[in-house]
Amino acid sequence: MTSETVSGAQAPTGVVSLTTDYGLADGFVAACHGMIARIAPAVRVIDVTHLVPPGDVRRGAAVLAQTVPHLPTGVHVAVVDPGVGTTRRGIALATPDGILVGPDNGLLLDAAGALGGVADAVELTNPQWRAPRVSATFHGRDIFAPVAARLAAGAPLGGAGPAVDPATLVRLPEPVVEPRSGGFTAEVLTVDHFGNVQLAAPAALLAPLPGRVRVSPAGNREAIEAVHGRTFGDAPVGALVAHADSADRVALSVNGGRAVDLLAARPGRLLRVEEIPTTGPALGPYA
Amino acid sequence: MTSETVSGAQAPTGVVSLTTDYGLADGFVAACHGMIARIAPAVRVIDVTHLVPPGDVRRGAAVLAQTVPHLPTGVHVAVVDPGVGTTRRGIALATPDGILVGPDNGLLLDAAGALGGVADAVELTNPQWRAPRVSATFHGRDIFAPVAARLAAGAPLGGAGPAVDPATLVRLPEPVVEPRSGGFTAEVLTVDHFGNVQLAAPAALLAPLPGRVRVSPAGNREAIEAVHGRTFGDAPVGALVAHADSADRVALSVNGGRAVDLLAARPGRLLRVEEIPTTGPALGPYA
Amino acid sequence: MTSETVSGAQAPTGVVSLTTDYGLADGFVAACHGMIARIAPAVRVIDVTHLVPPGDVRRGAAVLAQTVPHLPTGVHVAVVDPGVGTTRRGIALATPDGILVGPDNGLLLDAAGALGGVADAVELTNPQWRAPRVSATFHGRDIFAPVAARLAAGAPLGGAGPAVDPATLVRLPEPVVEPRSGGFTAEVLTVDHFGNVQLAAPAALLAPLPGRVRVSPAGNREAIEAVHGRTFGDAPVGALVAHADSADRVALSVNGGRAVDLLAARPGRLLRVEEIPTTGPALGPYA
Repeated sequence: MTSETVSGAQAPTGVVSLTTDYGLADGFVAACHGMIARIAPAVRVIDVTHLVPPGDVRRGAAVLAQTVPHLPTGVHVAVVDPGVGTTRRGIALATPDGILVGPDNGLLLDAAGALGGVADAVELTNPQWRAPRVSATFHGRDIFAPVAARLAAGAPLGGAGPAVDPATLVRLPEPVVEPRSGGFTAEVLTVDHFGNVQLAAPAALLAPLPGRVRVSPAGNREAIEAVHGRTFGDAPVGALVAHADSADRVALSVNGGRAVDLLAARPGRLLRVEEIPTTGPALGPYA
Repeated sequence: MTSETVSGAQAPTGVVSLTTDYGLADGFVAACHGMIARIAPAVRVIDVTHLVPPGDVRRGAAVLAQTVPHLPTGVHVAVVDPGVGTTRRGIALATPDGILVGPDNGLLLDAAGALGGVADAVELTNPQWRAPRVSATFHGRDIFAPVAARLAAGAPLGGAGPAVDPATLVRLPEPVVEPRSGGFTAEVLTVDHFGNVQLAAPAALLAPLPGRVRVSPAGNREAIEAVHGRTFGDAPVGALVAHADSADRVALSVNGGRAVDLLAARPGRLLRVEEIPTTGPALGPYA
Repeated sequence: MTSETVSGAQAPTGVVSLTTDYGLADGFVAACHGMIARIAPAVRVIDVTHLVPPGDVRRGAAVLAQTVPHLPTGVHVAVVDPGVGTTRRGIALATPDGILVGPDNGLLLDAAGALGGVADAVELTNPQWRAPRVSATFHGRDIFAPVAARLAAGAPLGGAGPAVDPATLVRLPEPVVEPRSGGFTAEVLTVDHFGNVQLAAPAALLAPLPGRVRVSPAGNREAIEAVHGRTFGDAPVGALVAHADSADRVALSVNGGRAVDLLAARPGRLLRVEEIPTTGPALGPYA
């Protein structure tokens, strides 16, 4: 890989974003900001979130992938890294709309897809791009932030280390999405701050369904009727609405409430969304 | 309204502040930062808070109004918006010391008052100022942030949409403040991170009271004696102090403790603060 | 003290960092950002953390001292200040690598040590450097942030107020660290977001110990065997590892878990780390 290829594939504008599971109570996030500011004082840093549950790579991957399309073209660092200091690789991935930096554990690939796919990949082995002294447990500060600072300041991707075959990158399993006649089954991808339940299903699977649907939660709970609407207020207060969310996935929300509680949902569980049969068992009431 | 009026009424300095109930665990806040940075890369963003309790418009209004006087003149976006995607209006309000942007649900008006009052108001209907694709549930990202970015970069208020009669803006009910002989009754306006209980009463109502007062919490609790002081340390450790807080309202604090627990206070409840009668029932002890 | 001395001792680069116990739910942090931006619009602000437990000066001192070495040279404001508004002094300390600003209650001195020691100290008495109106309870906004903004913009330290003899500064007690034959006893200094338990002991005390050690928690718990390793993954999943952490202190971690729970640790408690006797009572199993 040459620097020409990379600079052709993206154009860093001096922005670094940070997505981690570091929490906000320690100095970890600030140490990353500081390393970036020391190396590249003119680079701007945008925090995506630092409240990914510790070690939850899938959650980190989802929030990163859904946020980067709305950020300026830049360098996106993500660190959810239970294998820090072991043999797992540190990588940088160039895409048509920015660079991703982090551990090679599946965290970055959904975001790479959202930015147009992996054009080039490198392993972060260049000791000159790291902190002078690299700890065994804090590669965010000692490797990923310094690399991102250099890339955001315009250094070529190839300076970070040797090319990696994208086919060798670690991938997370695909979440379950099963279209079926009259509806679909899909895995819960995320639950947000408001208790909205986001399914892995693209919004296009919901679009053809009628104005009322039923949602079958995991376990022995009865199916629950939902309005097929556009926004929370399309259902009565306390009632369930199935809608296309702001990341263009199917989401389930309760107007003025928390769908996560009503549906006993959590990431990884399956929910079925389907049209209501004209005959069959009675449905449970609204929450 | 002309742009001359607006530019006369305020002078944007390229700062946008954000106040929301989005929480910090998702990518929502970053998406707003990103939209602003994409549209107006030179604009600086200051986060006020994103931990307004979901849908708590009154709490959002209070924190916004108490913070904006200390921010640079700029564009203040606030989003606590349970009615997102329904017929509620999106608005921008020009004041003598900055612009407020958000939903027309009462969230912005206390802050407008703190900045000198509403000089001009517009409804955010210009599709050219929005994201290319507007979701039904995330107007912070798709409408409010893009509008704020343009205003902070110097675009005239009138570009956002048509003028609105300020008399038609949705208002929250005024909090209860009842002066009475020897004291006052007032609604709890906010409870802060330290458990300090802020009343809606202006500090001027406390000033004439003597060095010791009594505070009567809601319910059947006994009145509690408090020092009328300047700061926490004016009361013994564990004891209650009534003082003028940093927003110039009456607040109740416990030196080294949490007044909210002692007083069983929560926003909306009434507390009575008054001088101690020379005769009458014995007071409860300090906490 | 002359301004020449100070400007020789450090070179502000227009960065202010903030470390407080203000929490993130109120507008307190934003008000500090705002005061800085109003006084010194070109100064960049980096948040260290605002989640120091309320009034926990020792915790604030530890996070500050461990973070500032990784920040750009600048002005570091810290406010954990239960004595606000009383007779405690506000101070600024010049070091060879930056300035510290905050209350004189011991909060700043570990950080000063990490930056090379106190070269000059002043008391913040100049009313011209404060907000026009100083509240009794929010010196972060009204004194510390305005002073830091001026210093970060290049004003001389001596402008903030008269020199203070560094020997008179309030100091926290030194945490317990007791080397002994075959190991050491040390106080728990911090517990981080991941439940890692950091001891006050420098990493050099762990280095000579063999590949397996035992850790004796407080109370009646049995000693627990730990791998002496470099990173979390050096121990089996669920097992304890003793290692040099990213601040170069001894830390105890559980691979994929939370050492704080296993060890019933909390700041201030003592833990003993030592080699495993070849004879003696059997050790407890891994968690």
